[in-house]
Amino acid sequence: MADKINLADKLALFEGYWQPRVVGDFNGHDLMVVKVRDEFVWHSHPDTDDFFLVLKGKLRIKLRDGDVVLGPGEMYVVPKGVEHCPMAEEETHLLLIEPRGTPNTGEAATAQPRREI
Amino acid sequence: MADKINLADKLALFEGYWQPRVVGDFNGHDLMVVKVRDEFVWHSHPDTDDFFLVLKGKLRIKLRDGDVVLGPGEMYVVPKGVEHCPMAEEETHLLLIEPRGTPNTGEAATAQPRREI
Repeated sequence: MADKINLADKLALFEGYWQPRVVGDFNGHDLMVVKVRDEFVWHSHPDTDDFFLVLKGKLRIKLRDGDVVLGPGEMYVVPKGVEHCPMAEEETHLLLIEPRGTPNTGEAATAQPRREI
Repeated sequence: MADKINLADKLALFEGYWQPRVVGDFNGHDLMVVKVRDEFVWHSHPDTDDFFLVLKGKLRIKLRDGDVVLGPGEMYVVPKGVEHCPMAEEETHLLLIEPRGTPNTGEAATAQPRREI
């Protein structure tokens, strides 16, 4: 029997922004937590939707046709192929879900490594 | 541009236990919210993992080799094929993720219909 996953406990285990940690597996997807602050990079994922759920803080997802602003308990799915740039003015904690191995920047060369906690 | 999804707002739109509502789509999966109370039925999903994230309340997932008890901000993935029986002593709110069309009871004949909100 696998352990339950307490998201806040997992987030307390590491520092650093835009460096997701894998906390579980679901149908070939990585379940990940991440701390973010400031602006990421404009990117898209050609083969997968991009799932964001805010656990703490406030996330702005910049899109070419407008922004989406999410607080705790709010989520958004960026459809595959759609350019976006996440940003946060304060430290913000997220749950992310992506197919295993998806580069977080959209490109393998610049992506964070896959790290489990 | 799609709307953001506020999970609490979605949960305020309906009543009834064990009747999930679809709030979004992610890689062919339904993103669903559900209110639960009392005991569901023992079942398994042969072809998909079963994702549970507690938003409010307390969920006990009974498994043949022990129980998992989840509070807000805690999640668990029941691996495909593993028998489980969710239950809650108090009204509990969940985020569920399953491939579109997965019967919530494990069997089409007894499953809740797919309803979007």
